[in-house]
Amino acid sequence: MTNNRLEAFSDGVLAIIITIMVLELKVPHGTDVHALVPLVPVLVSYLLSFLYVGIYWSNHHHLFHSARRVSGGILWANLHLLFWLSLFPLATAWAGENHGAALPTAMYGVVLLLAAAAYYILQCAILAHEGPDSLLAKALGRDWKGKLSPLFYLTAIPMAFVNPWISDGLYAAVALLWLVPDRRIERVLERE
Amino acid sequence: MTNNRLEAFSDGVLAIIITIMVLELKVPHGTDVHALVPLVPVLVSYLLSFLYVGIYWSNHHHLFHSARRVSGGILWANLHLLFWLSLFPLATAWAGENHGAALPTAMYGVVLLLAAAAYYILQCAILAHEGPDSLLAKALGRDWKGKLSPLFYLTAIPMAFVNPWISDGLYAAVALLWLVPDRRIERVLERE
Amino acid sequence: MTNNRLEAFSDGVLAIIITIMVLELKVPHGTDVHALVPLVPVLVSYLLSFLYVGIYWSNHHHLFHSARRVSGGILWANLHLLFWLSLFPLATAWAGENHGAALPTAMYGVVLLLAAAAYYILQCAILAHEGPDSLLAKALGRDWKGKLSPLFYLTAIPMAFVNPWISDGLYAAVALLWLVPDRRIERVLERE
Amino acid sequence: MTNNRLEAFSDGVLAIIITIMVLELKVPHGTDVHALVPLVPVLVSYLLSFLYVGIYWSNHHHLFHSARRVSGGILWANLHLLFWLSLFPLATAWAGENHGAALPTAMYGVVLLLAAAAYYILQCAILAHEGPDSLLAKALGRDWKGKLSPLFYLTAIPMAFVNPWISDGLYAAVALLWLVPDRRIERVLERE
Repeated sequence: MTNNRLEAFSDGVLAIIITIMVLELKVPHGTDVHALVPLVPVLVSYLLSFLYVGIYWSNHHHLFHSARRVSGGILWANLHLLFWLSLFPLATAWAGENHGAALPTAMYGVVLLLAAAAYYILQCAILAHEGPDSLLAKALGRDWKGKLSPLFYLTAIPMAFVNPWISDGLYAAVALLWLVPDRRIERVLERE
Repeated sequence: MTNNRLEAFSDGVLAIIITIMVLELKVPHGTDVHALVPLVPVLVSYLLSFLYVGIYWSNHHHLFHSARRVSGGILWANLHLLFWLSLFPLATAWAGENHGAALPTAMYGVVLLLAAAAYYILQCAILAHEGPDSLLAKALGRDWKGKLSPLFYLTAIPMAFVNPWISDGLYAAVALLWLVPDRRIERVLERE
Repeated sequence: MTNNRLEAFSDGVLAIIITIMVLELKVPHGTDVHALVPLVPVLVSYLLSFLYVGIYWSNHHHLFHSARRVSGGILWANLHLLFWLSLFPLATAWAGENHGAALPTAMYGVVLLLAAAAYYILQCAILAHEGPDSLLAKALGRDWKGKLSPLFYLTAIPMAFVNPWISDGLYAAVALLWLVPDRRIERVLERE
Repeated sequence: MTNNRLEAFSDGVLAIIITIMVLELKVPHGTDVHALVPLVPVLVSYLLSFLYVGIYWSNHHHLFHSARRVSGGILWANLHLLFWLSLFPLATAWAGENHGAALPTAMYGVVLLLAAAAYYILQCAILAHEGPDSLLAKALGRDWKGKLSPLFYLTAIPMAFVNPWISDGLYAAVALLWLVPDRRIERVLERE
């Protein structure tokens, strides 16, 4: 099985996830500046989630670029990742409409953590299929970003019950960490 | 006519179906744990339907992988399948919001049954086009999963009026049955 | 400019149009059979519009299959068609929720008529680009379906103010007329 | 990295943006002509935004057609553009539901301006990657449309607080300016 259709389907799902989050941005009631105020935290949440889905799309792109063929296991590991990513719009809307509230901020981190775990499982499934001497294995190297991100989420989730703004800062920090696209794979590919 | 654009269009529709089900997950009112309680059955329904759409996508992928060219009849059999799959979000939301209610549980099974029938018709249309000695005919073999699933649905639908939880168990059982992707086609393809 | 990306974009828009119509199907209030009754006319409208979008996708597929290269004019004629098709969900929901009402039934016909006109313009733009001796020109032949459909719509629109059921019958008749996919192009392509 | 998947993802996002704007078109209450009256300004706004997304898609198409390979920077410049375009449905709905109101009209222009800025950044990133002697650099030439459009927006935004209809006229004027697809690139490509 080639990975063309899997990439096309994933692209479709990610494109829809990134776009339907906009549907949670309710049209303001009223036409003055005050009507825009409640929109600000929702927009900030939307921006953060947009970055996260963009990062996942970019890394997904790099991951499958180095994996030429997919197995049934990889197919389901990919659907598992898409499932957790599909909960982003809900988690984003709940956290955005209740900015500064403990539980919505913590749950946002739980969804981020489970999506990160699903991505890790997908990466392992592809690595197992490609072998330890594969291009991908070399390109990933020690994968310090992938190992650091869950630690940030695991800190941010309980911290939401102390001070949600610290959690928000940690979520933003992970996004910035990844914003630099995964040059490792690009570099190894160029060297070959 | 090649099947590229048919696959692309089907991928698009399936990607949208699997994702817009999330729009039925209403943002919780309130920010405490109690606000999350009504979300649990809706999430479970969403997970089950996500699995089903994933299974259909995976099997659809395998089916068209072995069918190189499509006729007008196959095109419409495919649209017929997409029509029933497009009712998944509605059936999922109704069953999820009324967990344990007889009629919504039964109707969920009716939509599953009609989608399964549409898939069977599509499979027959492709088989008729490819011929009895085709790769696909060999790969499908006796198709026991395809024959067993409708029996489960036909049992689950009336059972919903006795005990909806039994129906839910039967729907979950069929999903687990199919979760293992269709190795038959993969195996035959590898042998050739 | 090749037509790959134009087809991909059109496929995306058509896939979304055909699927978001489902979002207008409101989850029934209540869990008994009476709760399903108001859904019936909405479902019938949805089915008719699903057929129409399916027909447009199928014909669009055939049209661009014979047009290898696209000009700026074709690109905009295509967007013009997509604009009218994008109003299908709104027209369908209004007609479906007010089954038997004159104006919604007439407006549904107006949207069908304008989409048909846009398709005709697109077809002319492609024909002008391909030339009178092209495969497409031969394949279309006298295009009696394309010429008959607007007459049906033009009859159905005023008829909605006399008896909306006659209009509904005419809309369904046109869908059945087109349901047989455009064999003309297929036949000419096979002959070559 | 090839640009195939970036184009496919962008096509998906643009197709969804252009289509979910329809979801803001609320089904009219009532079945007489008066029920259609409040829909008119919303439809006009929708048409204008449809044109703008169509123009962006068309220009995006031309831009990436001449850029064969993409870097990480181009990937993020593209996501940045998609972010601002994803706010079109919200800005369109707010302006459409409050036709003639100052702030919604001005904010529509702000979103247009930021999308134009993002497109300009994307174009610069691709130009820097392709080099000053590239086909794209020649094709763009002096890029007078790209330089004129922001001036129109910058005039229209404050003008909304004087007379919103002048702003609407300026927004429409820019759309008409671009409606003629970017022949420059086509011409240079044909010459080569």
